[in-house]
Amino acid sequence: MGQAVIDSLTQSNQLGEVFNSQNEVTLEKLINSHAKTIIDCSIGEVFLKNLPLYLQAKQKVVVVATAWYDHLDEVKKLVDEHQGTLFWADNYSISMMVYKRLIEISCQMLKNNPEFDVYGLELHHTAKKDAPAGTTKQIGQLILNNFPAKKEILYDLPQGQITPETLHIASLRGGTDNIVHDFYFDSPDELIEIKHSAKSRKAFVTGILKATEFLNNQKPGVYTLKEMLAVKAAP
Amino acid sequence: MGQAVIDSLTQSNQLGEVFNSQNEVTLEKLINSHAKTIIDCSIGEVFLKNLPLYLQAKQKVVVVATAWYDHLDEVKKLVDEHQGTLFWADNYSISMMVYKRLIEISCQMLKNNPEFDVYGLELHHTAKKDAPAGTTKQIGQLILNNFPAKKEILYDLPQGQITPETLHIASLRGGTDNIVHDFYFDSPDELIEIKHSAKSRKAFVTGILKATEFLNNQKPGVYTLKEMLAVKAAP
Amino acid sequence: MGQAVIDSLTQSNQLGEVFNSQNEVTLEKLINSHAKTIIDCSIGEVFLKNLPLYLQAKQKVVVVATAWYDHLDEVKKLVDEHQGTLFWADNYSISMMVYKRLIEISCQMLKNNPEFDVYGLELHHTAKKDAPAGTTKQIGQLILNNFPAKKEILYDLPQGQITPETLHIASLRGGTDNIVHDFYFDSPDELIEIKHSAKSRKAFVTGILKATEFLNNQKPGVYTLKEMLAVKAAP
Amino acid sequence: MGQAVIDSLTQSNQLGEVFNSQNEVTLEKLINSHAKTIIDCSIGEVFLKNLPLYLQAKQKVVVVATAWYDHLDEVKKLVDEHQGTLFWADNYSISMMVYKRLIEISCQMLKNNPEFDVYGLELHHTAKKDAPAGTTKQIGQLILNNFPAKKEILYDLPQGQITPETLHIASLRGGTDNIVHDFYFDSPDELIEIKHSAKSRKAFVTGILKATEFLNNQKPGVYTLKEMLAVKAAP
Repeated sequence: MGQAVIDSLTQSNQLGEVFNSQNEVTLEKLINSHAKTIIDCSIGEVFLKNLPLYLQAKQKVVVVATAWYDHLDEVKKLVDEHQGTLFWADNYSISMMVYKRLIEISCQMLKNNPEFDVYGLELHHTAKKDAPAGTTKQIGQLILNNFPAKKEILYDLPQGQITPETLHIASLRGGTDNIVHDFYFDSPDELIEIKHSAKSRKAFVTGILKATEFLNNQKPGVYTLKEMLAVKAAP
Repeated sequence: MGQAVIDSLTQSNQLGEVFNSQNEVTLEKLINSHAKTIIDCSIGEVFLKNLPLYLQAKQKVVVVATAWYDHLDEVKKLVDEHQGTLFWADNYSISMMVYKRLIEISCQMLKNNPEFDVYGLELHHTAKKDAPAGTTKQIGQLILNNFPAKKEILYDLPQGQITPETLHIASLRGGTDNIVHDFYFDSPDELIEIKHSAKSRKAFVTGILKATEFLNNQKPGVYTLKEMLAVKAAP
Repeated sequence: MGQAVIDSLTQSNQLGEVFNSQNEVTLEKLINSHAKTIIDCSIGEVFLKNLPLYLQAKQKVVVVATAWYDHLDEVKKLVDEHQGTLFWADNYSISMMVYKRLIEISCQMLKNNPEFDVYGLELHHTAKKDAPAGTTKQIGQLILNNFPAKKEILYDLPQGQITPETLHIASLRGGTDNIVHDFYFDSPDELIEIKHSAKSRKAFVTGILKATEFLNNQKPGVYTLKEMLAVKAAP
Repeated sequence: MGQAVIDSLTQSNQLGEVFNSQNEVTLEKLINSHAKTIIDCSIGEVFLKNLPLYLQAKQKVVVVATAWYDHLDEVKKLVDEHQGTLFWADNYSISMMVYKRLIEISCQMLKNNPEFDVYGLELHHTAKKDAPAGTTKQIGQLILNNFPAKKEILYDLPQGQITPETLHIASLRGGTDNIVHDFYFDSPDELIEIKHSAKSRKAFVTGILKATEFLNNQKPGVYTLKEMLAVKAAP
């Protein structure tokens, strides 16, 4: 992801300095770079080590690194103490953010209508190494949290009939570029299907660059895609 | 629709008196009926004439009749003056209500992302007499109101290339029981598809009976599916 | 299935005698029934026992009973010896027969184009007791027989990355009336999706009645849906 | 299309000489080029003028140029006289060829089952200049030729209810890269949906290069995708 972001910023002449293992971050380098915003595409551990430096250098931060979310509270506290400005997301696809919100709202609006069942499918290319996908598990948990009739998730092939309390989500592997989620709210008389396809990984780069631009106009604080799209949604 | 509602209420022993052209509504009959709620499946004109009687008889009202919406403000005022309780909807399908909300939210969250295009399709059975469907036109207007990049709707077959400001919605006719809406939020890198199917007309009867039940527990006021699903969605 | 066939024949005044455990089949009863065609909706064992009687009574036979296919060769021989006329199918849905043919042809036309991958999905209602469905396994085998790049079928949730030789078919359980098969022929540049939905069990009754009608005009022999649709396809 | 083919052949070191308006075709140049196969990506008029030269130079020909099909009989005769070898297609997508065959077979197998209706949709990107697409019109004609219940095609928005003899095909315009055809064979009890998506224009280049390779092993004659896929489909 990091290289794709670098390529995009280079193309638009917006790239300043690139830090990596050959050019490690120091406070002095950060200040000399005159960058307004740091895009951290490292890993969780490295991000947590460097965050104090970014904040001391008074630079805004867009966090692409993952695997640090257990430390979210500390990070928020640290950013607040420094009156810093930080953006984070576990998935920078704008439409996946919208998609999750659509699933959440459907659950909330339909949850007291027992004639509706919920179930879903994810389809990924054959090079995908795990099943179900990480994003799929997040969506499964989102449904469990918002649709009380479902008490547990089954990702495996059912052995016999499933119970009404089981949310079944199937994983399918095929093709070279599929990244698809497809969920159903289904009653005997009506059906809503909500489907998301990421056509390419560019979707994530676009989201990162939009987050960077969004931060330019924000007051100090910690932001996610939720705030970004909500602000954009205001009249 | 009226007969299907009558059949359903009869089956569940909930039906009181049936008024029609052979048994016209009067204040005296209404009071003697001891009905808690009137379900008005007439036409707009008849509903407007009888509403004052319903209100004087202190009965709650579920309005299935259409073609009176130009008088909505008067109706609201009249209900308020009598401290009455009234429910209305132009489409009693619960999932269509949810569907419209999903379209609205998608527009609001994506409207400032110019890489997203919006377009849609409706498919109805071959007995359908008009194209596009009335519900389709409502959805089209909803998008126009919430997605500023679209300035006009084209329902016809395009003559040449369409402009970016045109929201194209196609109508397809085929099969014996299709009632489908399918809308797309589509960028070069990502796609959200939101699809609704009414499998049978029972969806509308279910919604009417749920609205009737919902009114039982409401204070005086004018309600729509929006309030019903919002209340139901509360924890 | 038997009762639905009886209901349909009764409605159209085509039903003769009904045999069951209270009214067991004998040669005498068969001859006295003056029926032109026997529709056997029993089980494999009972069908095999009664077939000689049908043939001696010179009646045509439509076999709905299953679980006798290991004896197919004996059955064919017996029918030939009596110059009888028999129709059988493991699935009487006409469109499922067409569907299988479409899958077969796609395999045959694309099998030497290694850029194409094949994979599929079946979705059945939550009351379904087994996974994958029997019809799904037949389709899987059909692909294995006609698309040499695929050597084995995986119905389970993948553990890690699948091999190119694996045909992955996922099963999804949800809703009250879904009976869906959906298969994909997918290259990096092109995609064919072939989807079948049985909307109700009436599809099977329709197929049985059409087979009965079809037999009226056939010479002695053993027939399946393949011959029926081929004859119908002739100019 | 021509440039994309040139790029592909260049990458694989298979490209010989390129002829165009700066380097016009002559018999001498053709012979000196030592090319085995000419890929003609010009226009119909130019192709017809140059074909005799290709044949005299004893070179095989893959015709990508369109708008010469009124002269198909003459072309076939000329190729036969020279014992030449020529391949032509109006659409070089392999899967579109398969797709048309699937539509044709479905029509033939279902045409005597009056409970089945046929209808379809095409979706193309917003830069598309015409509606319906050329390929869509070919598919419409294919259905008319093979499904006798349909007597005429309606591409426009229906004015009132359509007749059972009308094949309705809708065109939808939206997004940046959609090239989709979606056709339905739909009865009250069963549904077959057959959908084709060209994900990119590379599909056409792939088909052209496969046709070129295919011609290497063919005896003199005139070939189309039909023969190519049939040969490939043989055991």
